[in-house]
Amino acid sequence: MDGARPSRDRQSTRRRASEPPAEWGHAHPVVEAVTPQVEGGRFPAKREVGDLVTVEADVFTDGHDGIACQLRWRHDDDRRWSGAPMRPLGNDRWRGEFPADRRGTTRFVVRATIDAFGTWLHAARAKAGAGQDLTVELLVGAQLLDEAAARAKGKDRKRLTQRADALRDASDAADGAQSAVLDSVEASDFVALVAEYPDLSGAVSSDPLEVLAERRRARFGSWYEMFPRSASATPGRHGTFRDVEKRLGYVARLGFDVLYLPPIHPIGRTKRKGRDGSVTSGPDDPGSPWAIGSDEGGHTAVHPDLGTLEDFRHLVAAAADAGIEIAIDIAFQCSPDHPWVKEHPEWFRWLPDGTVRCAENPPKRYEDIYPINFDTADWRALWDELAGVVRFWVDQGVRIFRVDNPHTKPLRFWEWLIPGVQQDHPEVIFLAEAFTRPKVMYRLAKAGFTQSYTYFAWRNAKWELEQYMRELHDSEVADFFRPNLWPNTPDILTAALQSDGRAIFAIRHVLAATMSASYGIYGPAFELQEHEAREAGSEEYRHSEKYEIRHWRLDDPRSLADLIASVNGVRRGHLALQQHRNLRFHWIDNDQLIAYSRTVVARAPAPADLSPDDADVDTRPLLVIVNLDPKNPQSGWIEVDLAAVGVAPDEPYDVRDLLTGARYTWHGARNFVIIDPSVHSAHIFRVEARGAGSPGSEAIGGGTPSRP
Amino acid sequence: MDGARPSRDRQSTRRRASEPPAEWGHAHPVVEAVTPQVEGGRFPAKREVGDLVTVEADVFTDGHDGIACQLRWRHDDDRRWSGAPMRPLGNDRWRGEFPADRRGTTRFVVRATIDAFGTWLHAARAKAGAGQDLTVELLVGAQLLDEAAARAKGKDRKRLTQRADALRDASDAADGAQSAVLDSVEASDFVALVAEYPDLSGAVSSDPLEVLAERRRARFGSWYEMFPRSASATPGRHGTFRDVEKRLGYVARLGFDVLYLPPIHPIGRTKRKGRDGSVTSGPDDPGSPWAIGSDEGGHTAVHPDLGTLEDFRHLVAAAADAGIEIAIDIAFQCSPDHPWVKEHPEWFRWLPDGTVRCAENPPKRYEDIYPINFDTADWRALWDELAGVVRFWVDQGVRIFRVDNPHTKPLRFWEWLIPGVQQDHPEVIFLAEAFTRPKVMYRLAKAGFTQSYTYFAWRNAKWELEQYMRELHDSEVADFFRPNLWPNTPDILTAALQSDGRAIFAIRHVLAATMSASYGIYGPAFELQEHEAREAGSEEYRHSEKYEIRHWRLDDPRSLADLIASVNGVRRGHLALQQHRNLRFHWIDNDQLIAYSRTVVARAPAPADLSPDDADVDTRPLLVIVNLDPKNPQSGWIEVDLAAVGVAPDEPYDVRDLLTGARYTWHGARNFVIIDPSVHSAHIFRVEARGAGSPGSEAIGGGTPSRP
Repeated sequence: MDGARPSRDRQSTRRRASEPPAEWGHAHPVVEAVTPQVEGGRFPAKREVGDLVTVEADVFTDGHDGIACQLRWRHDDDRRWSGAPMRPLGNDRWRGEFPADRRGTTRFVVRATIDAFGTWLHAARAKAGAGQDLTVELLVGAQLLDEAAARAKGKDRKRLTQRADALRDASDAADGAQSAVLDSVEASDFVALVAEYPDLSGAVSSDPLEVLAERRRARFGSWYEMFPRSASATPGRHGTFRDVEKRLGYVARLGFDVLYLPPIHPIGRTKRKGRDGSVTSGPDDPGSPWAIGSDEGGHTAVHPDLGTLEDFRHLVAAAADAGIEIAIDIAFQCSPDHPWVKEHPEWFRWLPDGTVRCAENPPKRYEDIYPINFDTADWRALWDELAGVVRFWVDQGVRIFRVDNPHTKPLRFWEWLIPGVQQDHPEVIFLAEAFTRPKVMYRLAKAGFTQSYTYFAWRNAKWELEQYMRELHDSEVADFFRPNLWPNTPDILTAALQSDGRAIFAIRHVLAATMSASYGIYGPAFELQEHEAREAGSEEYRHSEKYEIRHWRLDDPRSLADLIASVNGVRRGHLALQQHRNLRFHWIDNDQLIAYSRTVVARAPAPADLSPDDADVDTRPLLVIVNLDPKNPQSGWIEVDLAAVGVAPDEPYDVRDLLTGARYTWHGARNFVIIDPSVHSAHIFRVEARGAGSPGSEAIGGGTPSRP
Repeated sequence: MDGARPSRDRQSTRRRASEPPAEWGHAHPVVEAVTPQVEGGRFPAKREVGDLVTVEADVFTDGHDGIACQLRWRHDDDRRWSGAPMRPLGNDRWRGEFPADRRGTTRFVVRATIDAFGTWLHAARAKAGAGQDLTVELLVGAQLLDEAAARAKGKDRKRLTQRADALRDASDAADGAQSAVLDSVEASDFVALVAEYPDLSGAVSSDPLEVLAERRRARFGSWYEMFPRSASATPGRHGTFRDVEKRLGYVARLGFDVLYLPPIHPIGRTKRKGRDGSVTSGPDDPGSPWAIGSDEGGHTAVHPDLGTLEDFRHLVAAAADAGIEIAIDIAFQCSPDHPWVKEHPEWFRWLPDGTVRCAENPPKRYEDIYPINFDTADWRALWDELAGVVRFWVDQGVRIFRVDNPHTKPLRFWEWLIPGVQQDHPEVIFLAEAFTRPKVMYRLAKAGFTQSYTYFAWRNAKWELEQYMRELHDSEVADFFRPNLWPNTPDILTAALQSDGRAIFAIRHVLAATMSASYGIYGPAFELQEHEAREAGSEEYRHSEKYEIRHWRLDDPRSLADLIASVNGVRRGHLALQQHRNLRFHWIDNDQLIAYSRTVVARAPAPADLSPDDADVDTRPLLVIVNLDPKNPQSGWIEVDLAAVGVAPDEPYDVRDLLTGARYTWHGARNFVIIDPSVHSAHIFRVEARGAGSPGSEAIGGGTPSRP
């Protein structure tokens, strides 16, 4: 899909040369509808290291011949293709798997061949069953084995030839002996041997498709956002990177994996915003961190009040020691004081009156921020400079970037930048902060963003949560879009959070943390339940940290820190919450109660050089039930989809609440649940089947849950 | 999807050159998910001359710019592309239409451009509304109009330049004058003028897709199958083409458009089948017409007992005079006596014992028929010979072919043969007789078959009829697969027809004739309700015409001929029954009653050189209600989807039964229906709304019914 004008001279597909291509004479099978497939193969499907990648295809042929189907794959670093047989699922659908055992791109094809031997064997067996003479059939079979032998080597060739001879010898024997020799070639190991030497002259392969395997953090992580300038223990003092270091223990105690910092660069003075975003600012107003750039530098500088670049690197290292990755903000826009405005005026959109076009939403004008003009004729230099910014921070040790408003920059730019950076640093993660129309968000994900913010913050009712999560987990969207659920951000204090007190924060947290492998909160505003809006009808925080330094009382006894730590602990301890495409809703007869399970889907066998991340991780299914009503106890009858949580219909099973430790014994699908939000907002049950097999092993290898 | 091995050297899409392509700097829009699209554009979507082809696409761009979207198309015979604007439907989906005004292939693309003028106008209007100064905005607008003027010519250029000057003049005027000049460029005709000269430098077009438009008979036709050898008025005498000519009046009176004859070629003697398919035959047994070929000739000869080739041509011409097209059978297989067996032994599969492999289903062997070995090394000569057979009959005046068991021949062969024949004779129609797995049937349709037999004969219950018809009318299947519904064939006497007497024949007929634009019956067995099976559990007719000459009493008073003639008359008189993709089921509270409407979808304005086929055809919606129970009266309440049949919720409307002439006045959606199968098996109601507009015009131009 490139270029403005379709060419005039191309002939339509139906105006073909009268001579058919040479391979049309013998290549019979058809391979269609291969999955995973993102936009016809224009983009890779996304998976994570350790996954077993399930590939399916419609495969069939004309005539009565049987077919054999092989999944073939090659990682970019491999010199050779690997292969494994696929299994028929019925209705001409076939399935196979390959392991995502390394980061990077793996190409795969589905290859179909005519299974001449299997077809012959089936027909010969039918004749034998009907008591017919097999003389001719055995001679035909011998010929097929001779052909296979010609394609084989060494011992295998010898075995095939011997069996061909045996068929020939039996061809003029009596009926009983004829049938007996059939049994000998029908043995499964012999059939497998023949299958190893298919006749490839008529093989047909699908067009190559791609899977991009990224590190597990691409899928699973608990994020915490905080403003470094509010990190000081001393009220009124500008926080520093050193202060953030002191906060690492708190963040680690809460169980977060990623600490995301809003922009850490110098902030412009010109048209700087004051408190609550007012157009006038006083000399002490720190300005918005997103108004990037001043005399002190631009996107590769750090704000002097935060410390030095060395301080920053020190923070990154200290965080790593605490098991936390530092994520920074990539906001490609400039304050009027940014060095680029002088050095590269052509990168901005100048108006006829000599000013720069700023973002506007009449009557509002965001004069403290100049958008970048990507339509500049100098776009190549611009793109290189911006990519240089990312690479600069990669060089400082950053491996996770939260990208501000990527949808206001060209999609093509990201499609170029992200794979370019990942080619050298495949571990780098990009989170798209694009709160825009669904198709644009999805296209950004296709273009390369590792993860994406979602509409979760505004999905409150059971039906809309179910609908949206099904779209994210169960549709083809899950092949390219990894959701990161945030109940709040510095820009988003939803109406629900403004009005409903402590319980609604607990509810929104447990939903985010258990519906998606990646989620995040903007703290300490979240755990301290900051809920005052700038004005009625606004989603802006009052006294927003975007425009002022705040001092947070982390030891407030009303803090949700303990609950958050508990939930994050459950996330770390249970593989089911770390996977994607594994959420299943269960019916419950109360619209205020929502119930869903997370069941571990098959993983690749861990290669020796992979750290055994899951060694002490529980692999049993979880069943989460949340009371969406923050004010009243709600009760109801749940219909547990027992198959989805690996429980036999007739066996009792235990559900253990991982937040309280309580254990209940349930029988069958229908069970009673009551949740009082003044005590707890949710059950996070671990489903403990009593069947055979050691605990934690039941769900492994159970295959991908089928789509609804 | 060609070739057995993926190439080893191709790099994955993510290993790109670091330099982005030149157009990436300015081509912002994205065009995705274009429909209709069959397998990523590998095959054309099918439509018929007179259709308005509806094209949709997801179109969007990064940033805040508005976009404009144009549908562009070019018929293979056109030298230039045509274009028409597309409309946004919401959620970044766009729709446009082009007329299928000629047979053949039309390529189309969706072209998106940035709508700089519209974007500017919207922003300027917002500023004006907020009372802001417009000086800069007007200068920006003037520049945009200057640029459009540079792309325009003549008068248009002058108009654009004048308006640019007006904007500039007003830029330093007072607020009122500034706002007034905005009004002048906001006039719809001026906006349309600017849109005629878009900036194509950043345009993005989708990959070209194709629509194949065929003649209307490709979609709409009532078929009658009969064995010419049973056409004699004299019992026991072998019928001739002359006898078939005498039967034309009967077929025309029943309202059929196509008369399909099983193979008319010489029949083999070797291993000829006897009555009811027995393996021994007497000297007077005529053999199966599908055992083609003898000393008297093969696929281009006619059976001497039927007459001469000249007689056949005479029949084709006489049929044409009666408004009937003759369809013949293409069965690419041979009797052992076929000339090809001697002339081209390599076209058959020889076994080690020197015999030819025949079709088998142990213990049965079909020794009277040799399949053709398409895997012969001589396949090119074989394909040419077979294509020559089709072309031979085209030269005799045949334009419709029913193809026997196409799924036992290579898919590629049809993909080559059909477009090849249609390139010279685009009016030729191929009906696929492939009763096989769904994906193979669909692939044959993609490969080029105009129409296909279906599973209709075995779909009896309401739920399975609804499910299957939704798949055929409402899924992407409808873009390439045109169903032809047959309640019976010489091979298929269903269990339902065997057991349930006259009413079940009436039921199955009305379902076939009103659920699909194409349908057919095998007569006179059907209208005379022949229902005895060869044996219990068999779908074979007893005394099957496949193996003997039958004499039919067409004047039997129990014949369904009158009912069939009535229903075919309704089909000819009502456009709704001649279209596809226009069936909608209506809820009715009795599982023995099935209700569905057929509503005319938009057609292209008829070009002057098209015969006005629809001149006296009624275009009002039909509502069909069938009692599926052949034994008992059934009644129920229907919930008419009023919007689907063009009735306002609050207005009474008439439904006129086109079989009985009875008229009922209905109010609202809920109405009572009772059908007694001893009298009639169905209502075929014409819905006669009383609203404004002349009768028959309400539904035209109402747009394609949206998918469920």
